[in-house]
Amino acid sequence: MKSFVQAFVLLALASSFASAFDPSPLQDFCVAIDEPKNAVFVNGKFCKDPKLAKAEDFYFSVKMPGDTNNPVGSNVSAVNVDKIPGLNTLGISAARIDFAPYGQNPPHIHPRATEGLVHFQFNIGKTNALAFAGLSSQNPGVITIADAVFGSNPPINPDFLAKAFMLDVKVVKDLQAKF
Amino acid sequence: MKSFVQAFVLLALASSFASAFDPSPLQDFCVAIDEPKNAVFVNGKFCKDPKLAKAEDFYFSVKMPGDTNNPVGSNVSAVNVDKIPGLNTLGISAARIDFAPYGQNPPHIHPRATEGLVHFQFNIGKTNALAFAGLSSQNPGVITIADAVFGSNPPINPDFLAKAFMLDVKVVKDLQAKF
Amino acid sequence: MKSFVQAFVLLALASSFASAFDPSPLQDFCVAIDEPKNAVFVNGKFCKDPKLAKAEDFYFSVKMPGDTNNPVGSNVSAVNVDKIPGLNTLGISAARIDFAPYGQNPPHIHPRATEGLVHFQFNIGKTNALAFAGLSSQNPGVITIADAVFGSNPPINPDFLAKAFMLDVKVVKDLQAKF
Amino acid sequence: MKSFVQAFVLLALASSFASAFDPSPLQDFCVAIDEPKNAVFVNGKFCKDPKLAKAEDFYFSVKMPGDTNNPVGSNVSAVNVDKIPGLNTLGISAARIDFAPYGQNPPHIHPRATEGLVHFQFNIGKTNALAFAGLSSQNPGVITIADAVFGSNPPINPDFLAKAFMLDVKVVKDLQAKF
Amino acid sequence: MKSFVQAFVLLALASSFASAFDPSPLQDFCVAIDEPKNAVFVNGKFCKDPKLAKAEDFYFSVKMPGDTNNPVGSNVSAVNVDKIPGLNTLGISAARIDFAPYGQNPPHIHPRATEGLVHFQFNIGKTNALAFAGLSSQNPGVITIADAVFGSNPPINPDFLAKAFMLDVKVVKDLQAKF
Amino acid sequence: MKSFVQAFVLLALASSFASAFDPSPLQDFCVAIDEPKNAVFVNGKFCKDPKLAKAEDFYFSVKMPGDTNNPVGSNVSAVNVDKIPGLNTLGISAARIDFAPYGQNPPHIHPRATEGLVHFQFNIGKTNALAFAGLSSQNPGVITIADAVFGSNPPINPDFLAKAFMLDVKVVKDLQAKF
Repeated sequence: MKSFVQAFVLLALASSFASAFDPSPLQDFCVAIDEPKNAVFVNGKFCKDPKLAKAEDFYFSVKMPGDTNNPVGSNVSAVNVDKIPGLNTLGISAARIDFAPYGQNPPHIHPRATEGLVHFQFNIGKTNALAFAGLSSQNPGVITIADAVFGSNPPINPDFLAKAFMLDVKVVKDLQAKF
Repeated sequence: MKSFVQAFVLLALASSFASAFDPSPLQDFCVAIDEPKNAVFVNGKFCKDPKLAKAEDFYFSVKMPGDTNNPVGSNVSAVNVDKIPGLNTLGISAARIDFAPYGQNPPHIHPRATEGLVHFQFNIGKTNALAFAGLSSQNPGVITIADAVFGSNPPINPDFLAKAFMLDVKVVKDLQAKF
Repeated sequence: MKSFVQAFVLLALASSFASAFDPSPLQDFCVAIDEPKNAVFVNGKFCKDPKLAKAEDFYFSVKMPGDTNNPVGSNVSAVNVDKIPGLNTLGISAARIDFAPYGQNPPHIHPRATEGLVHFQFNIGKTNALAFAGLSSQNPGVITIADAVFGSNPPINPDFLAKAFMLDVKVVKDLQAKF
Repeated sequence: MKSFVQAFVLLALASSFASAFDPSPLQDFCVAIDEPKNAVFVNGKFCKDPKLAKAEDFYFSVKMPGDTNNPVGSNVSAVNVDKIPGLNTLGISAARIDFAPYGQNPPHIHPRATEGLVHFQFNIGKTNALAFAGLSSQNPGVITIADAVFGSNPPINPDFLAKAFMLDVKVVKDLQAKF
Repeated sequence: MKSFVQAFVLLALASSFASAFDPSPLQDFCVAIDEPKNAVFVNGKFCKDPKLAKAEDFYFSVKMPGDTNNPVGSNVSAVNVDKIPGLNTLGISAARIDFAPYGQNPPHIHPRATEGLVHFQFNIGKTNALAFAGLSSQNPGVITIADAVFGSNPPINPDFLAKAFMLDVKVVKDLQAKF
Repeated sequence: MKSFVQAFVLLALASSFASAFDPSPLQDFCVAIDEPKNAVFVNGKFCKDPKLAKAEDFYFSVKMPGDTNNPVGSNVSAVNVDKIPGLNTLGISAARIDFAPYGQNPPHIHPRATEGLVHFQFNIGKTNALAFAGLSSQNPGVITIADAVFGSNPPINPDFLAKAFMLDVKVVKDLQAKF
């Protein structure tokens, strides 16, 4: 069987046909547009004129594996509202995660999705691995703990972090240089 | 590269480690249990004792393709709270959909998820296809239109359906026999 | 007793007096206005300047029966945000439904209200009937199944529908011509 | 035309047929039952076993006018979850309000519905009037201001109320005797 | 110990540092701006350009006691979105309430917060008192019952209020003059 | 002026009087009770019989400063549903935070409240400081980053953490011993 990955491709077909079904689809989708320049903002994204919605607004293919040749040995392809503008206001997104053997997706949180606990993924197998995840926001965000703490810009006072993490100030400064 | 599909496998790892992170995890998950016999019901599902949660409550593999050898040429593997009890109260689920060439997932709605429009999927390619979908409910449900209308039990009055669908009563009765 | 139907008339009075009660009513209502031309859109409707709100924004009378002289023998007067702009953001609307004897409101769904199951109403009596319904959205929408499936524009491929509904392609084409 | 009021009767038909449509209706309704004696409580009401749901759980007729022969000249027939147990968890209810000429529904709030401003209705006509209202909760509650302030049990300290309402203490005590 | 009240000061620090932590903070805050002149409105407030957010947007000190030298003997310092624009869309606000001995915060409701029952506070002690309250909206509003009923502008018909409160019309007119 | 802190004391008074105001208060509060032994669980907490609610269920005083004599120089007194059972289902809680000079509340998140970014508080003054914070959940939880990562039980594989934080494995093991 010659199978291939078409994740989120068919979602596009479904939604575009669906709009043909509904004589008053204004509220059923709200395709995101970039904020107009020099203008006001809302929490989330403005919609484009619904009459201008087209199939491409609902389409994204994650058929190709991500490159895991990096220090943590994983690659996350987030499929959020930036990739599928039709997800705007629907409260859902997804991700393809590729892992090299023993690869990890380091400890992180999603500040705008149901699962906000600190969590991570670890490929305990000797082969590559592939996962799909669903997230309960069109824009869940991700905060990788180590980056946020030691790589923030502007940097956090090293003495503060040394006390919080019970680390030597020198180690904190080394970490801040790396991240 | 020897890649394989591990959808929702790593979600399990993430959540089980996450519970180790949180000293008071009661509210962060609520693993579904079946309703106790002869007892009251709530909207949704009761939780098991959180101290009894285990990795299997968060785990489901959809590595194997579904069988598309059927009249519509598709197969939906719903990964909802019945398959992953740990999804209870999280408002999210997923599905793997396999398609034979020109296979279809016929017109349907999800009564308990954001996308409630009548929609369908159709594989326009000459090869098998594979899709993953995310749904904004741990129990989104599915109502296939043709089944619901012509296959309901008890059956709907054929004269009523004949008027609603502008079909001959005889055609309606034939349909009711098939569905 | 000379009684008459004033549904949603008094709702208007209530709300207009209520605004006189509240020294800071900005958030308590958001009277819908049409989208400004050539402009951005949001999910839902923009509000008019609250200082310009007037009683008519909250008022709609459904005193007159709807005309049921049609093939299905019913008439739905939707009282949604298009009729009462003051319903905007309040998450509620209503409908008056008139039925001729044995009239039906054919199978349909409301894509943006709590009750999204396929349902219908049927007047089993020998007299006219009158009903009022409440819906949990200011813009619940309605998708009549038969129209959506066989009357969509652009039309759905007849071969696809023939397979989905187990109908002869010729019957599907006849239906598409009628709807 | 011999028309009659069947408000909320057809809602019942819709829902009972709807359950026949859905092969897994557990989440789509949750018919309220009274709390079991000597038992725990939840916020809202427990559901009865969905297999025991019947048409009567979704049915209530408000065909008969309410008696407006009282000091305020109005009568509210609330159609909430206590009257239609099938409304449980659906977030919606309704009311029939009958008014005598110049009758009033005195200033009140609904603590558990969207519209929580102090509001009232007043029949400015010389004839009886009839209104239907929709409310965004299956159990919106009603607090009539005058009753709540001057008729609470146990009574509020008259000196406190005298200061709050800038009334003479004697007037407050008179009011507390009346309400 | 020389302690002092810094309520909501540290909240500011937390949020400003937090924004340094998050590489894509657009959705995590939405600092309110005043509506642009001659423009459309939304339910709530527009956001300023997130790149222009600064610490002062998240800061408000209620270190100073409010002046309780007034007829009711209390003073409420609401700390809502008008005081801390960074609270916009976060669904939370607070208040500092100062009481003179036997001071009262008269019967009122918050139309846009979880607690919408008629309630009041009363300092039963012989000393000044200080309280902090949290409210589940960035703009909960307050409707003081006596003001709303007897001080509305335009005034409510005195005959109507006389019937609602079982007061003499003359007393109602006196109250309307005072409020 | 002899002022004292009575935070959340008056909330209690408000709510207990409020219940006297409302003839049908069942839904307005749901005082938490501990889970019955050997029984099912729900997401959140069951309510006690509303007829048994008493003032103490809504009362908590944080008049006394917390002890800041500890390595981080701060003390958080969480006032959540465990302290005020009447907060159950209301979606709000609060905290008193005391700081010694240069004391810190180390980097943390609240997994079940609106503000889920990594944040911290730091007393930049030379004196003790006092803050009150409101949180948008009756049970917001707290996950202190350093504890969660290096102090989890069971411990996380040190090699995994060394890679995630770019630390030497020996440093990770030292940290795990301290936390």
